Amino acid sequence: MESSAFVPASQFSLFPTKPHTTANRPTHLPFKFKPWKSTTCRPTTLQCHKMYVPGFGEASPEAKAAKHLHDFFTYVAVRIVSAQLQSYNPEAYEDMMQFLETHPLNDGDKFCADLMRESSTHKTLALRILEVRSAYCKNDFEWDNLQRLSLKMMDDRNTRLMRDYVSETTSSEK
Amino acid sequence: MESSAFVPASQFSLFPTKPHTTANRPTHLPFKFKPWKSTTCRPTTLQCHKMYVPGFGEASPEAKAAKHLHDFFTYVAVRIVSAQLQSYNPEAYEDMMQFLETHPLNDGDKFCADLMRESSTHKTLALRILEVRSAYCKNDFEWDNLQRLSLKMMDDRNTRLMRDYVSETTSSEK
Repeated sequence: MESSAFVPASQFSLFPTKPHTTANRPTHLPFKFKPWKSTTCRPTTLQCHKMYVPGFGEASPEAKAAKHLHDFFTYVAVRIVSAQLQSYNPEAYEDMMQFLETHPLNDGDKFCADLMRESSTHKTLALRILEVRSAYCKNDFEWDNLQRLSLKMMDDRNTRLMRDYVSETTSSEK
Repeated sequence: MESSAFVPASQFSLFPTKPHTTANRPTHLPFKFKPWKSTTCRPTTLQCHKMYVPGFGEASPEAKAAKHLHDFFTYVAVRIVSAQLQSYNPEAYEDMMQFLETHPLNDGDKFCADLMRESSTHKTLALRILEVRSAYCKNDFEWDNLQRLSLKMMDDRNTRLMRDYVSETTSSEK
C-alpha cells in the first residue's frame, strides 16, 4: 500500500470498536452512583462497526438497492405478462409491444402509471403487471439465492480482474 | 378482468398444483405393483409452482439481479474509498475524481479494470476498491433489510399508483 489512507476494510470504523459499556465493570463497585438518574443515563456512543457510506442522504444503501430491485421486478412482471398474453391474447400482446416501443422501462412506476392512463385495455394490463410484480417479489423471487449468487460473483469477478491484470503485465514483460 | 388471459398470479402455473404422488394412496392397497421397478419409477412431473419468466436465457432472474447488485456494490465501494481519500490523501482523491469524470460507473468490473491499467497509483486505488466492495458485500450490506424494504416498497408503490389513478379519475368526473 502506498499511502496511510489505505486502512484495511475490516479495521475501518468511525467509532471505537469497544465502546464504553457497563458490562465489563467490576462487580464489587457500586453499579449505580446516582440511581435516581438510572433511566436517563444511557451510553450515547453508537456501536457501529460498519464502513461509512456517504452520498445516500437520508436513505440507506439498502433502500437504494431496493429501488433498483423494484424496477427490476417491474421488468420481470412485464416479461411474464407479455409471455402470457402471447399465448392467450395476441391483440393485447400487440398493444403491449407497441407501448413498450415508445415507453422505457427504466422507471417501473412511471411505466405503470403511463400504461394505466393510455386506455381502458392498457389499464387492465397495468393492473395485471402490478399484481404480478407483487406476487413475484413475495413468492417466486429467491432472496437467499440472490445473496448466495452475489457473494460468489464478488469472489469470482475480483479474482478474474486481478488474474487478467497479472497475466497481461506478465506477458508484456516477456 | 376483460379477458380470459388474466389468470390470477397465485393460480398461474405451468404445472398442475397437485402432481401425482403416492403419498395419498390408500394404505390397504399394495404400495408397489412392480417392486422391481421401484428405483426407476420416479414421477417425471416437475413440481414447480412459480411463474414462467422468459427472456433470461440460461441465467436466472436472481443472477441478473445479482449482477445489478454487483455493479451497485462497486459504486458504493467507490463512494467509501473516495470519502476515505478525501480525509487522508487529497492527491489520490483528486486522481480518483478526475478518473470518475471520464469513466462511467455503470459497469463496475470494466471501471475497475480500466482504473487498474491507468497508472501505478490508480492500480492501488483499484485494488482498494476490489477489497472494499468485497468486504461491504460480505459484512456490511444488510440482506434481510433489503428484502424487508423491497416488500414494503412493493406494497406502498402499488397502493400509491392505484390511489393516484382513482383520485385523478374521480376528480375529472366531478
